[in-house]
Amino acid sequence: MIKVGIVGGTGYTGVELLRILVNHPDVELSVITSRSEEGMPVADMFPNLRGHTDLRFSVPSADTLGACDVVFFATPHGVAHALAQEVLDAGARVIDLSADFRLQDAQEWEKWYNQPHGAVNLLPEAVYGLPEVNREQIRQARLIAVPGCYPTSVQLGLLPLLEKGLLPQQMLIADCKSGVSGAGRGAKVGSLLCESSESMMAYGVAGHRHLPEIRQGLSRAAGYAVDLTFVPHLTPMIRGIHSTLYAQAPDLKDDLQALYEQRFADEPFVDVMPAGSHPATRSVKGSNMCRIAVHQHAETGQIIVLSVIDNLVKGASGQAVQNMNIMFGLEEQAGLRQVALLP
Amino acid sequence: MIKVGIVGGTGYTGVELLRILVNHPDVELSVITSRSEEGMPVADMFPNLRGHTDLRFSVPSADTLGACDVVFFATPHGVAHALAQEVLDAGARVIDLSADFRLQDAQEWEKWYNQPHGAVNLLPEAVYGLPEVNREQIRQARLIAVPGCYPTSVQLGLLPLLEKGLLPQQMLIADCKSGVSGAGRGAKVGSLLCESSESMMAYGVAGHRHLPEIRQGLSRAAGYAVDLTFVPHLTPMIRGIHSTLYAQAPDLKDDLQALYEQRFADEPFVDVMPAGSHPATRSVKGSNMCRIAVHQHAETGQIIVLSVIDNLVKGASGQAVQNMNIMFGLEEQAGLRQVALLP
Amino acid sequence: MIKVGIVGGTGYTGVELLRILVNHPDVELSVITSRSEEGMPVADMFPNLRGHTDLRFSVPSADTLGACDVVFFATPHGVAHALAQEVLDAGARVIDLSADFRLQDAQEWEKWYNQPHGAVNLLPEAVYGLPEVNREQIRQARLIAVPGCYPTSVQLGLLPLLEKGLLPQQMLIADCKSGVSGAGRGAKVGSLLCESSESMMAYGVAGHRHLPEIRQGLSRAAGYAVDLTFVPHLTPMIRGIHSTLYAQAPDLKDDLQALYEQRFADEPFVDVMPAGSHPATRSVKGSNMCRIAVHQHAETGQIIVLSVIDNLVKGASGQAVQNMNIMFGLEEQAGLRQVALLP
Amino acid sequence: MIKVGIVGGTGYTGVELLRILVNHPDVELSVITSRSEEGMPVADMFPNLRGHTDLRFSVPSADTLGACDVVFFATPHGVAHALAQEVLDAGARVIDLSADFRLQDAQEWEKWYNQPHGAVNLLPEAVYGLPEVNREQIRQARLIAVPGCYPTSVQLGLLPLLEKGLLPQQMLIADCKSGVSGAGRGAKVGSLLCESSESMMAYGVAGHRHLPEIRQGLSRAAGYAVDLTFVPHLTPMIRGIHSTLYAQAPDLKDDLQALYEQRFADEPFVDVMPAGSHPATRSVKGSNMCRIAVHQHAETGQIIVLSVIDNLVKGASGQAVQNMNIMFGLEEQAGLRQVALLP
Repeated sequence: MIKVGIVGGTGYTGVELLRILVNHPDVELSVITSRSEEGMPVADMFPNLRGHTDLRFSVPSADTLGACDVVFFATPHGVAHALAQEVLDAGARVIDLSADFRLQDAQEWEKWYNQPHGAVNLLPEAVYGLPEVNREQIRQARLIAVPGCYPTSVQLGLLPLLEKGLLPQQMLIADCKSGVSGAGRGAKVGSLLCESSESMMAYGVAGHRHLPEIRQGLSRAAGYAVDLTFVPHLTPMIRGIHSTLYAQAPDLKDDLQALYEQRFADEPFVDVMPAGSHPATRSVKGSNMCRIAVHQHAETGQIIVLSVIDNLVKGASGQAVQNMNIMFGLEEQAGLRQVALLP
Repeated sequence: MIKVGIVGGTGYTGVELLRILVNHPDVELSVITSRSEEGMPVADMFPNLRGHTDLRFSVPSADTLGACDVVFFATPHGVAHALAQEVLDAGARVIDLSADFRLQDAQEWEKWYNQPHGAVNLLPEAVYGLPEVNREQIRQARLIAVPGCYPTSVQLGLLPLLEKGLLPQQMLIADCKSGVSGAGRGAKVGSLLCESSESMMAYGVAGHRHLPEIRQGLSRAAGYAVDLTFVPHLTPMIRGIHSTLYAQAPDLKDDLQALYEQRFADEPFVDVMPAGSHPATRSVKGSNMCRIAVHQHAETGQIIVLSVIDNLVKGASGQAVQNMNIMFGLEEQAGLRQVALLP
Repeated sequence: MIKVGIVGGTGYTGVELLRILVNHPDVELSVITSRSEEGMPVADMFPNLRGHTDLRFSVPSADTLGACDVVFFATPHGVAHALAQEVLDAGARVIDLSADFRLQDAQEWEKWYNQPHGAVNLLPEAVYGLPEVNREQIRQARLIAVPGCYPTSVQLGLLPLLEKGLLPQQMLIADCKSGVSGAGRGAKVGSLLCESSESMMAYGVAGHRHLPEIRQGLSRAAGYAVDLTFVPHLTPMIRGIHSTLYAQAPDLKDDLQALYEQRFADEPFVDVMPAGSHPATRSVKGSNMCRIAVHQHAETGQIIVLSVIDNLVKGASGQAVQNMNIMFGLEEQAGLRQVALLP
Repeated sequence: MIKVGIVGGTGYTGVELLRILVNHPDVELSVITSRSEEGMPVADMFPNLRGHTDLRFSVPSADTLGACDVVFFATPHGVAHALAQEVLDAGARVIDLSADFRLQDAQEWEKWYNQPHGAVNLLPEAVYGLPEVNREQIRQARLIAVPGCYPTSVQLGLLPLLEKGLLPQQMLIADCKSGVSGAGRGAKVGSLLCESSESMMAYGVAGHRHLPEIRQGLSRAAGYAVDLTFVPHLTPMIRGIHSTLYAQAPDLKDDLQALYEQRFADEPFVDVMPAGSHPATRSVKGSNMCRIAVHQHAETGQIIVLSVIDNLVKGASGQAVQNMNIMFGLEEQAGLRQVALLP
């Protein structure tokens, strides 16, 4: 049994990790930390866990965390910078769900997060935890940066085209719609039901922190600096990201459907839908699946890719567990076989 | 034109007052206050008001407020206690949407609100602003306590029975369902979309501040101390209260439908639905109407009254304006003719 | 492996059975029928099942169904009446999710369903599938009538009191709030998002088909004919039932919390919450759990029980699988360990 | 008073016309037709109208309709083709909310609507009712084709750029998100709350009937055949369209903010938000306003326009009334001053 610790268990990615891990066949939950809720049973805060775990929140300590086989960080950015080295030194592996190790360029990170990068020395060994790209490195990694939610859905939707060099230098567009859980469990007016339900709005048009991460991933795949316009939208639902991706390829003669199907043929968590499909986010609600449909207009060559995930599962905690499974040689789908809740 | 001031314009009852008053034919909006947002145009905070008003938030002062004909308090409890006397002294009338003057018994108030009552001397002249009961007193009043949202829907639903003495000493039950806007615009975790949508829950079963207000109103109507079990529920929608009211009257032979129709025949804002109806809260969304249906089971005599309002309109700001209309001899429906937004 | 057939797989209880059964460790799905969708892969209709099953809809036949160990009926009422005998004769056991065998009194059934009862001869052996009451009979049964959603939440909430004789002859009240999935997957105007979201309404106040079923269950437990007022409400959410139950017991001196905890101590799917709790339906979304909180007002003796379930799981398909587990000697929780999806 | 008739009053645009017109100061509602509901009071179907109108549905007849000053068609496509001529001949003017007269090219219409065009002879006099473009023609028109919901939001968002010739031949992109009321009040599985809430999906990627209408409008403004990729999305809310519009103008040096503000300076129903804004659809819920924000990325020149409307108001019935006001020389805002319902 893998001994697991979780730092920062009071947010949505924390409780989602718990939802998945309490039923994971190879995992023993040892520690979950929260400074503010020390001593409180986790199930008192999240009653869906009643009967599934007796764990209580404790104060984070390198000792107890270091005694785990792997520690998940479900914390605001900056926390893993400060604590990861200690945990690694104590012998545990680290899977960080925050943005702390996603960008390889520390200066870029500092620009977008407005604070000094606190663990530049760890960047060389940090592996970007997108299994569909980095499965082999993940196997060996001590430190995983779990991709962001938008970046996961956008990259999976565009990788097949970029890897094949099919989108020469052009402005790609990612119009992304996210459920409100992407904004976290913090008490913010903008996330109130009365503010965010029955409404649709864009945000961060001038620049969003996930943009450099998406650019980094797409550029690696393409072999050149990919340019992308990224517009996120706050959508009146709890879970789900729908990315609508636009690329222009007037002369493209390839069979895109076959290209996508082949690219993801062996991927347990990417489902290429039949040609002409329109995946709905509810088809992945609560599951670790990414469903993709690719369209191309015959007349204009315009390519439209639709990519949906559950932002809290494949976009966060599920992908984190997928990484853990790979790191520890477990079956990649272990603990991740839930069928999406429909309706 | 009536010169109007609003104290505390940043919450939901404040913006709802503005929505109604900017189109009121007899009103001139003069002042709206907010200490925290001084100088900000109201329409910057509430973009639905762009093009409808140029007013800016100002710091509350007895001078500017006293220069109004009437001042609405859309504030947390305690604020009107502190400020109402000054405003009255300066010559304005006061319509308080908070709980500050709803209970005639100051000790009862202090018990439920856990603080000293700050304006006991004003209680004798405070009129409980339920026009269907107190229209004449409202006409003369300097100080109105606008009823709470739950109390409005429960009282209108039960008054016809209690006034006629048809419910001898028994335990009445009010099972009430409220939209989340009833919890206000404060940043609270429990009001987040991700916490309150797609879920239903009771709260305050052990005791809710609206209970003494409901008891006070029903007891006045009945002429004896009415006992009531009141269970509020948080419902996954923005606006609306649905009160399901239970009373037992095994030997009742009256025609309840006729009783209700007659009681409210002249009321512009109470609509007694045809026998057998099930009013939906959406039929009053954005309107000042209360819709009521009364049912009685032939076999058991069980009476079930269904009463719906928009908690922000008839349950707060609309009723406040209705009071103003009465106080100033305007047409009672002035500014309140909006049709509910359906769908 | 238990060979399972499903009759009528195109509705919400059908897809919910599939969601649960594709991950059930002891089940092999053999047949799923739908006359209208013959030949269509189930996962084409319900894309959440893509990758989980290759099953196609087929036309129902006694041959293929009879070759199963157990057949679930997820059909409109009347269908199981017509088909159950054939399936039983062929050697399969039957778990009926419809209302066809819930009422032991065929005349009562005919009154509420406005059609002749088509299988009166099967009534004597039909077992009412509420494991918390009938576990032993379920073990031996060939034919199970899975309780309705409202009846499950109401009975579990009131049984402890009635079994102990603590509620002498009185009018009980069940004010129940259900998500829209309770209305099924049929194309009805009233179930449209634009009609049922952002609104709350009661329905069926004059009489609802679940009333005789609730009365039957409560009366068995009490040993006398229990009288109940039942008011269902359509609530703007997909899943969940919240039952608020009212009983009067002015002289009751029992410790209700202890009574409930003891009654359900060994029940894997009933969770008695700590005293003072307010369970939310989201705490059981997608899970087979029923969570209950019991309150009593010290002054008045008024008892208020809050009981929440997921109407599609403990209120239908999950409970059906729980019955199957008991019938076949499997672990009762097999396939039913999902944690509720929160948020 | 203008005598008004409505053909087809049982859908969402019908009830929305009624909501607006019952409070319109210059209108007398004379006729509302529905074959299926003949004789039923309108307020029985739409209880929000109780107390606002006593009108009953009648069977459409050229006599009664022709006696009106103006007749609105809120009907499925094809109906106005068949009936408009008669109504015009009888002397009434026609405002058609359906697609029947939106496309000037009858062959294009037949291609998208799969049926013969039933009133080709009326096309020359049909005026496309977008007041921001065609106000003068509207004044004189006998027959108005009210623009579609998507086309209204997309055209208003792009017109300033195209009219100035600032977007030379390129592929424009309109990523549009619509509330479910856009799908109408028909009983369709896809519009059920349980199918469309808590989910986001694209539809009609291969081609949507609003595409030729948008192309027609944009091409007129630009003076050349504009090419556009249009992807509509079904969004889990009742009302609202959010159009996110993408254009590339790397060398553009214009001050776009000033361009938009000037273009719409005199428009009562177009609100250009301050630079950097993100309009939310709730800011126009129930109002006839279109709010627009224009963004341009300094580095790349990418232009992003955000345009929001209420699909049932500015996208349908409100715009229809705006046309009526212009046609009859009324104040353009008459009956259309409602403030959006927020929250």
